Amino acid sequence: MRDAYHEELDALTEQLVEMTRLVNSAIGRASRALLDADLTLAESVIAADEAVNALRDDLDARAMDLLARQQPVASDLRTIVTSLRMSADLERMGDLARHVARVARRRYPESAVPAPLRGTVVEMSQVAERLVAKAGSVIASQDVEAALELESDDDEMDKLHRALFTALLDPASPHGVEAAIDVSQVGRFYERFADHAVSVAGRVVFLVTGRRAEHLAASS
Amino acid sequence: MRDAYHEELDALTEQLVEMTRLVNSAIGRASRALLDADLTLAESVIAADEAVNALRDDLDARAMDLLARQQPVASDLRTIVTSLRMSADLERMGDLARHVARVARRRYPESAVPAPLRGTVVEMSQVAERLVAKAGSVIASQDVEAALELESDDDEMDKLHRALFTALLDPASPHGVEAAIDVSQVGRFYERFADHAVSVAGRVVFLVTGRRAEHLAASS
Repeated sequence: MRDAYHEELDALTEQLVEMTRLVNSAIGRASRALLDADLTLAESVIAADEAVNALRDDLDARAMDLLARQQPVASDLRTIVTSLRMSADLERMGDLARHVARVARRRYPESAVPAPLRGTVVEMSQVAERLVAKAGSVIASQDVEAALELESDDDEMDKLHRALFTALLDPASPHGVEAAIDVSQVGRFYERFADHAVSVAGRVVFLVTGRRAEHLAASS
Repeated sequence: MRDAYHEELDALTEQLVEMTRLVNSAIGRASRALLDADLTLAESVIAADEAVNALRDDLDARAMDLLARQQPVASDLRTIVTSLRMSADLERMGDLARHVARVARRRYPESAVPAPLRGTVVEMSQVAERLVAKAGSVIASQDVEAALELESDDDEMDKLHRALFTALLDPASPHGVEAAIDVSQVGRFYERFADHAVSVAGRVVFLVTGRRAEHLAASS
């Protein structure tokens, strides 16, 4: 049986997993709002980001309270400080989903994504959702192997990001300046979203092994 | 006289101020590299970001060590955890300066900034430098009034950012898609840089007053 202190530590983990769920829903719905030019959906994603921020604030307050009351050392200390860092990553991922929704809102009733680029944006949104779902599993399971896999999903995101820019700059199918700005911004939001998911997974790796993910990945 | 523990706490603050100096130099030099299409300078900014990252790693290790050894409570605990957060902001500001330098490098031997937009980009770089310098002073002085002033500098950045987009989208002086993408990215890098400087100042406000900067600013 776990004592009250360890239950509080577990609660931090559960709250982080809950944040990954909210952020997963946010990026999925923001992507749909963007591709379908759905203003109501965009507005709802923008409004829902408050819930992610509130969860982060609550988590940070609990973590600080645990630091002050329990004066943890060693792995418990690392768990708590890592939770603070993950909550910052996840809060930022929520912001990025909101940014995607704001591009959708700004361009309504048009879609911000020209038809020839839709396929790439759809794929980017799918990779983003997959990454945050995996980050959630990894937080819960502390599975180092699974955490290291996020790097290769992120390679896929980088490849899509480059493909998006190549398509944007293709002289054979010119896009307007406005579309170019919107799509390049959205592309960057997805790419940053993925980076933060990889960062969350990397923090799990460091927590469990005491080594940086990039070193383990290089040596495996 | 300060004991060894409080000297270590002071050292965290000094190291944060040192980070603001490096980041100030980085954004200033990246801006020059961008505007003058100076490849050597761009490369040196990109390489120098390692020093910011190393400083952050060292600071974080010291902060964790203090948490583990000293089991601080109350204001010392807040100081240490806030240091961890500020170091993350400053490290990210270093990344953003590097991103500006990478745009300069990508577009060499051209300048990424079309002539009619130079003035606005120059102003953005000046506001960015001013903000990080002020953030450094505020970390050292813990001056809440000065910290709250960063908000209005940031308003200026937001205004410049909007002006940049308006100019980019002006049908009377059309820009190519490539320039539009570069300039909109650079604009966003400056804007995010400024946001992180404001975030650093806000953390000082919270540390000193226990209240959020936005609440104090609203009531003042």
